[in-house]
Amino acid sequence: VSRTTVVSAYDLLREDDWAESRPGSGTWVQPVSGSRSSRRQDILARSLSRNPVFETLLTGPNSMIDFSRANSGNPEGLDPELFAIQGDDLAQLLGQPGYAPMGLMALRRAIADRYTCTGVPTTPDQILVTTGAQQAISLLATLYVQRGDNVIIDNPTYVGALDAFRAAGARLIPVPVERDGVRVDILRGLLAAARPQIVYLMPSFQNPTGAVLGHEQRREVARMAAESGTAVIEDNTLADLALDGEAPPPLAAHAPSDAPVITIGSLSKLFWAGLRVGWVRAPESIVVRLARLKVVADLGSSVLPQVIAARLIPQTDHVKELRRRELLPRLDLFGGLLGELLPTWSWTRPTGGTFLWVRLPYGHAGEFAQLALRYGVIVTPGTTMSVDESHTDYFRLPFFQHPDNLREGANRLARAWDAYAPFADAGSRAVSVIV
Amino acid sequence: VSRTTVVSAYDLLREDDWAESRPGSGTWVQPVSGSRSSRRQDILARSLSRNPVFETLLTGPNSMIDFSRANSGNPEGLDPELFAIQGDDLAQLLGQPGYAPMGLMALRRAIADRYTCTGVPTTPDQILVTTGAQQAISLLATLYVQRGDNVIIDNPTYVGALDAFRAAGARLIPVPVERDGVRVDILRGLLAAARPQIVYLMPSFQNPTGAVLGHEQRREVARMAAESGTAVIEDNTLADLALDGEAPPPLAAHAPSDAPVITIGSLSKLFWAGLRVGWVRAPESIVVRLARLKVVADLGSSVLPQVIAARLIPQTDHVKELRRRELLPRLDLFGGLLGELLPTWSWTRPTGGTFLWVRLPYGHAGEFAQLALRYGVIVTPGTTMSVDESHTDYFRLPFFQHPDNLREGANRLARAWDAYAPFADAGSRAVSVIV
Repeated sequence: VSRTTVVSAYDLLREDDWAESRPGSGTWVQPVSGSRSSRRQDILARSLSRNPVFETLLTGPNSMIDFSRANSGNPEGLDPELFAIQGDDLAQLLGQPGYAPMGLMALRRAIADRYTCTGVPTTPDQILVTTGAQQAISLLATLYVQRGDNVIIDNPTYVGALDAFRAAGARLIPVPVERDGVRVDILRGLLAAARPQIVYLMPSFQNPTGAVLGHEQRREVARMAAESGTAVIEDNTLADLALDGEAPPPLAAHAPSDAPVITIGSLSKLFWAGLRVGWVRAPESIVVRLARLKVVADLGSSVLPQVIAARLIPQTDHVKELRRRELLPRLDLFGGLLGELLPTWSWTRPTGGTFLWVRLPYGHAGEFAQLALRYGVIVTPGTTMSVDESHTDYFRLPFFQHPDNLREGANRLARAWDAYAPFADAGSRAVSVIV
Repeated sequence: VSRTTVVSAYDLLREDDWAESRPGSGTWVQPVSGSRSSRRQDILARSLSRNPVFETLLTGPNSMIDFSRANSGNPEGLDPELFAIQGDDLAQLLGQPGYAPMGLMALRRAIADRYTCTGVPTTPDQILVTTGAQQAISLLATLYVQRGDNVIIDNPTYVGALDAFRAAGARLIPVPVERDGVRVDILRGLLAAARPQIVYLMPSFQNPTGAVLGHEQRREVARMAAESGTAVIEDNTLADLALDGEAPPPLAAHAPSDAPVITIGSLSKLFWAGLRVGWVRAPESIVVRLARLKVVADLGSSVLPQVIAARLIPQTDHVKELRRRELLPRLDLFGGLLGELLPTWSWTRPTGGTFLWVRLPYGHAGEFAQLALRYGVIVTPGTTMSVDESHTDYFRLPFFQHPDNLREGANRLARAWDAYAPFADAGSRAVSVIV
């Protein structure tokens, strides 16, 4: 390897994105055709300083396929220059103090206008810009939850929500999610019995199940929020990734304007997570209280990505179509491979989002995930996404990755399953004999 | 007013930065020659829709001078294009997942290198990037403080630190700041007596007093941290704004590498607050724990401002000089005006930072601040910055504002004092008779 190659590879490593172990969701490591984590990067950088022959480390058989998350960059077909900040943007921004605790007014207006145009009348005063949907959840947890308070949460659910509510000291009360979304009848009973501070749901393309809550059920949940006065969060982070048609209107569309229905949105999936632009839409009285927490948390997110975000939001419909064109062939590809290579695994084809919720015919997904690591694939077992360590026979696979990753990952999963299945099957048969 | 004028003014309003009431630090309203708050902006925008003759509202006698904070834009003389994100930046960033919970490696390396080059050996693993210094304080409060825990804090101090520790449920124990910085002898006694979870100090150009802690005292504080194992935060947000010479080396320079000395830094004052780029430098074991909280808080700050920040940090020495050239004449101007118009007020000329810590000869700064509002100036009384509502006869004035603001503000303060002083003086004399 020439010195030039080493130096340019080293530069590449330095410039690269960083990804980290997320508590409870495994390590985010380099996909074969994606970005490299910097934990790995650091190891590589260090080994590089001892040994310039590093290339097999980068591309060799040790490279992990990271199926612990979907892996979206910016949308194919959208002009990258829309993400630029230059000339006029800078002239308007620089010289300003640069603090915008609730978000730039231009962005809050764009978000509000988008809701209004899709049938949910909204003013900018109802919008608080956050550093991604995760900060929205985290601020809401801080606002509503004191140690020991009850929180009802769909189960399984987004791990970042579990983390945020647990960090706030919540007692988490699971409400099951089935093929048609969260069980609203059970939710009604729990609301009366547990008197929670807050309810957290993901009604559209639920993470991890992909389930979509129907119109009538949404109406009922909105009614519950209005009648009980209990705050209901709808996390619509994945709602724009419909593969076929559209997600139903948000819960907020069915609620009186003063009902405590809190909608979380994000540009991370549709446009790009590196913007870290999310928001809360809620009655103004809630937004005002949340804004005070935002001030204490960070005095406001950076205004630069917000200028970009304000420009991107009017592109939403166009980009939904672009994403659809990216996602559908990948779902078809990955679904086909799994059907062929792993015919005993079961899953329902989702109508949106980025994940398959896969059920093993026998065995324990946590054990299988451990074994899969040795075959070079990182997968997240269902227990990690469960309030109560349930869903032991499920795990989550992303189909939103580079096609090369999907192909190689499916093959590795098949090899791992070949190694795991006989033992797991024997185990399950042994158990059935004993019982 | 022509339709074109109205429309372009309206656009201007929409594009403008937003500023907000900060709990306990007054409302941030439009300075005469600065940006406009969007609370105000909204009012203006609404009145505009009723009445196109809005210009007196913008520039007329109702405009407030906001002396509740220093008002820095980007540095004069630094190429604004350094703040741009385009072409190559985008090519490297887009397509990456965009999550960097600890910060972009390029930025962490730039920050670490800067510490190393200024005599404080640091690795990137010791750096966590945050959304400004405020998030650094807030995450540290979350990591160290449970409800009821003791926190020692310099007094008076930065209001954002008071907010963050109070929000975490801390019992705040004040340690006084005098002309030569925090009273280290008192700190030593309090450390033994109160066994705090953490100590928060601002050793360089302390906000609001401007005090600088000496070398020997820094050595002693670092020794205390190492010996007691109590985490000591040094918030160096203003440390780069030296007016004459340099601030002494940070506490971290005097501490063994595993001592719990935690340094907070920020680009907000030197470069631009709109970046919202701050950081924590600490032993790696602390950074790792803090990073987990950062993941729960927001999954990482936006990577876009971090690319800019990595490019700006090597300009630090140059920009320190640029800022010095901006600050010194303003301090001279404002100091001269105050000396002439308000000779009974006392303050010590600071050697850095952006504030004057002003003492009234009699009266109550909170009362005076109320009256000053009616004369069109917002000032923050010392009680707001005090742990214990002390410093009733002090308030803080920024000299880092546009010269027009400083001139007009000094005149308004003088008029307000003319209206206030006779009563306050009589009051103080009356009291002295009674006692």
